[in-house]
Amino acid sequence: MTLRAREALEGAELIVGYSTYVRLVQRDFPHKMYLATGMRGEVDRCRMALEHAAGGEQVAVVCSGDPGVYGMAGLLLELAPEYPGVTIEVIPGVSAANGGAAILGAPLMHDWCSISLSDLMTPWEVIERRLVAAAQADFCIALYNPSSKGRQDYLRRACDVLLKTRSPKTVCGCVRNVGREGEECRTLTLQELRDAQADMLTCVFVGNSQTVVVDGRMVTPRGYRLEGQ
Amino acid sequence: MTLRAREALEGAELIVGYSTYVRLVQRDFPHKMYLATGMRGEVDRCRMALEHAAGGEQVAVVCSGDPGVYGMAGLLLELAPEYPGVTIEVIPGVSAANGGAAILGAPLMHDWCSISLSDLMTPWEVIERRLVAAAQADFCIALYNPSSKGRQDYLRRACDVLLKTRSPKTVCGCVRNVGREGEECRTLTLQELRDAQADMLTCVFVGNSQTVVVDGRMVTPRGYRLEGQ
Repeated sequence: MTLRAREALEGAELIVGYSTYVRLVQRDFPHKMYLATGMRGEVDRCRMALEHAAGGEQVAVVCSGDPGVYGMAGLLLELAPEYPGVTIEVIPGVSAANGGAAILGAPLMHDWCSISLSDLMTPWEVIERRLVAAAQADFCIALYNPSSKGRQDYLRRACDVLLKTRSPKTVCGCVRNVGREGEECRTLTLQELRDAQADMLTCVFVGNSQTVVVDGRMVTPRGYRLEGQ
Repeated sequence: MTLRAREALEGAELIVGYSTYVRLVQRDFPHKMYLATGMRGEVDRCRMALEHAAGGEQVAVVCSGDPGVYGMAGLLLELAPEYPGVTIEVIPGVSAANGGAAILGAPLMHDWCSISLSDLMTPWEVIERRLVAAAQADFCIALYNPSSKGRQDYLRRACDVLLKTRSPKTVCGCVRNVGREGEECRTLTLQELRDAQADMLTCVFVGNSQTVVVDGRMVTPRGYRLEGQ
């Protein structure tokens, strides 16, 4: 959490969020007012927040990671014109890609892209097109939402797309529970990743052609010339 | 800055960094020991930090943004095996893409990629291949290092590559001095961006085909169905 985010929560009269994230915030701010909704209640949640703000309250909407990356910032700004007088400040955070990368080492040191494997709101054809492009242009890749109850084979399908262009030995990494209890990580090859289990709480990293494992850490060199190389 | 980063700085006996960033940190921690080097002194800087750490000191290396994205984390981990006994913790931060996006609105709400236009350590052909791929697969794009003294036309060259695939009306944004004094931002079209001036302190954003301007903010919709749509 950033200093600015904590300051905003301290100043908020009402904190709105998905119930799981509200529980995490409540531990540090037990005496605030909260409004929580379940998954897929995103539009209602944002409208509630904006209505309270329009009524004059100082409202904080919480997400995990960065609200500007697969979070609530966009939806709030899209709905905002219906609530004139409400001012929205987006407070950036550490996205799961950045948080997970730090645990694995430094896999995103060079050009990289972020792809969500969730096809709830994006057709699979678009996702696949992005995987193909990322593989061909040798981007490091952070994969969000690698799996869920209804989509257990999506990570395997994504790996099969990547394996058409990228070496099966490409260095990959998985991090579970980024920044929370039970945090764990491991490195593996793209071929092994294809057959790995990853749940919704896992962030998956695929290195570029230069990515290596150094003392157990996943590292993508930026290209500095070191002695003897 | 994150709470964890501040904690690490508080606990550090020595803070090492590029002189510009060291000056920023010194304002909040005036009584620490510092070691600063100039630009392109990256390898020396990391070796100095590792040597002091090998001597038993608690050392913090500072970068701007996220040390794991075009920062110092990778180089430190690459050099670490030469300094046995030194333990490195990577503390993630808010990268310029995430910080700049929040100022503009929410341009990176969907799949996005990060491309540096600096060809100091990456051949231009690789950079161009990544621009082509990002344009074709309709990624939102954050462009780092859009210009420098020696490379004043790189942003124009990048826009020309993107314009082969993407509409000249594509919504774009520029943010200067992310999170620092003199912070400023504006939205413009891809065609306008081609002829815009951007310096080294600017982060440039290119929207995807869905990106819009809402009340002056740059927003990429995630795809939630809103009433009446």
